[in-house]
Amino acid sequence: MSKYFNKRTKNLIPYVPGEQPKEGETFIKINTNECPYPPSPRVIDAICQSVNESLRLYPAPDASLARRAFADKYNLSLECVFAGNGSDEVLAFSFLAFFAKDKKVLIPDITYSFYTVYCDLCELECKQIPLKDDFTIDVDAFVREKGNVVIANPNAPTSLALDIGDIERILNAHPDDVVIIDEAYVDFGGESCIGLVNKYDNLLVVQTLSKSRALAGMRVGFACGSKELVDGLNRIKDSFNSYTLDRLAIVAAEAALKDDEYYKSVIDKIVSTRESVKKELMELGFKVLDSRTNFLFISHKTKNAEDIMSYLRSKGVLVRHFKTNRIDNYLRVTIGTDEEMDKFLSLIKDME
Amino acid sequence: MSKYFNKRTKNLIPYVPGEQPKEGETFIKINTNECPYPPSPRVIDAICQSVNESLRLYPAPDASLARRAFADKYNLSLECVFAGNGSDEVLAFSFLAFFAKDKKVLIPDITYSFYTVYCDLCELECKQIPLKDDFTIDVDAFVREKGNVVIANPNAPTSLALDIGDIERILNAHPDDVVIIDEAYVDFGGESCIGLVNKYDNLLVVQTLSKSRALAGMRVGFACGSKELVDGLNRIKDSFNSYTLDRLAIVAAEAALKDDEYYKSVIDKIVSTRESVKKELMELGFKVLDSRTNFLFISHKTKNAEDIMSYLRSKGVLVRHFKTNRIDNYLRVTIGTDEEMDKFLSLIKDME
Repeated sequence: MSKYFNKRTKNLIPYVPGEQPKEGETFIKINTNECPYPPSPRVIDAICQSVNESLRLYPAPDASLARRAFADKYNLSLECVFAGNGSDEVLAFSFLAFFAKDKKVLIPDITYSFYTVYCDLCELECKQIPLKDDFTIDVDAFVREKGNVVIANPNAPTSLALDIGDIERILNAHPDDVVIIDEAYVDFGGESCIGLVNKYDNLLVVQTLSKSRALAGMRVGFACGSKELVDGLNRIKDSFNSYTLDRLAIVAAEAALKDDEYYKSVIDKIVSTRESVKKELMELGFKVLDSRTNFLFISHKTKNAEDIMSYLRSKGVLVRHFKTNRIDNYLRVTIGTDEEMDKFLSLIKDME
Repeated sequence: MSKYFNKRTKNLIPYVPGEQPKEGETFIKINTNECPYPPSPRVIDAICQSVNESLRLYPAPDASLARRAFADKYNLSLECVFAGNGSDEVLAFSFLAFFAKDKKVLIPDITYSFYTVYCDLCELECKQIPLKDDFTIDVDAFVREKGNVVIANPNAPTSLALDIGDIERILNAHPDDVVIIDEAYVDFGGESCIGLVNKYDNLLVVQTLSKSRALAGMRVGFACGSKELVDGLNRIKDSFNSYTLDRLAIVAAEAALKDDEYYKSVIDKIVSTRESVKKELMELGFKVLDSRTNFLFISHKTKNAEDIMSYLRSKGVLVRHFKTNRIDNYLRVTIGTDEEMDKFLSLIKDME
């Protein structure tokens, strides 16, 4: 490894995102949990109206139009909302702002695999708390263990959700720690804990527009929490990159957050497709976890998951497989359009 | 300060960008070194063509369209080019990737004030090497001192440029250190050292589309260097945020880098305005440094710089003043359109 790398860079094992097709490749892409439906027409309009001479000027460093829309949607004050370049950047800033070597970061052993990468990036000690046998989060263990907490709710790739009551138990057990709840998938059936933000100073809730708002291509994420936690994020952001949302991302975010009607119909459609695909997969011999997300986490009684993934890829369908202990015989399948899921199901049937 | 902040967050003194007018405020804005002319019509077209359903999909994590355009422009191989969310993000990643506590970071004492903030963010020791009395960089001192090196060339806010020969002397004196040359303003009359990238493994050149390419609002920056240095940046990026350029920023960057003809005329115009404004300011009793940038660094024989700034602000013109030792009687004035500069000059004359 290069002599110019510092210890951090040498030791990192970077996150690997799901495969993105190269130019010219056409896949049914149900591997990265994107939304199969387009962004709201109002989002498209808002962006188009801003593609003009003003792009020569820096964006608003505080992205206040986007933050205001998020604050209004969730009845929060503006100073309790932070906006970043996707929830990944928001999470990275959170690790940089609040976590330190002398306190462990508690995460489930099976969860969004970027969390351990952030720990390496920030040179933090991570303690992975095993999911229970049914893949639910072991709330008692999170209550018992000492450390800052990061939980995805619903969790990925398991698709399972925690109750708000369980999150409150964890918050109450960690008054001097920061508890981050990553709600990337919450709009598909989870229960958001944003309502707890004004009650718990130690709670930071992270959301993204990449999933239910169909804007993965624009890179917008949010955090909300007490004013002091948001201040901490701003201190890091303003010491890293003053403007991480460009002008078009800001107006896209504002328009997306203001068009609940359109997105409710998109979410309803995805949930409806999810439930019918789930039923069919169970009839085909799959175990399917109780998804509160826009994906299904599935395992076949007899067929090997990696074999299924390779077979589907050869037929032009991308799904996600993780070579991780305990879940290496599972696949994560994003809910696409009905046509995409019909193709997926018919390929699965052909494999019989 | 919050008990939830770690030591890093508590100790940070974040960077403060130049004032951005609030909604409804109209200023002549010659305080943040933006381009006074719009982006190329081809950039506008390229963005418009991409504002569509594809925004639901993640961008290419390697931003290869933008990187390819940069590589082609400078005759580099693709693997020697890195793209990020503005040169600020590229610089932050560089500090995170290459610098460590056991080796000082050498910077001029008067330069882009974000460099010391990055040192604080990464908990690094910074050694500030004084500019010479004429505000030029003390090359002999950079050759003599041990440590990694970060130099803005041309330097900001002084506007002065170093010769390539001087940069080679520094590179040769630091074979085991990383030398970062920040060329944010190079297109306005500096000499780029990108041609040295294939000769020196330890050289990283950073550029931005925010100045000469009139795209501050889209947040695109680049680094180029040896394959190993670019690998290091990728290791950090992929451990921080897989996609920091959104879909529209990528196509905007590609189009901007391919339209040299348009941007050459923009740059020529700005340089021509700069030289005529410089001449007038000297006639009005200002000392004006020999700018190789899109701004002038000026000081009046008798009038106080902060007073001039306040006066101009009261008349609707924003310029930048730094309350920094040695330069607190200087102003940094961005070159705007001829009309903007005429207004600025007439206000200065009225002040007599």
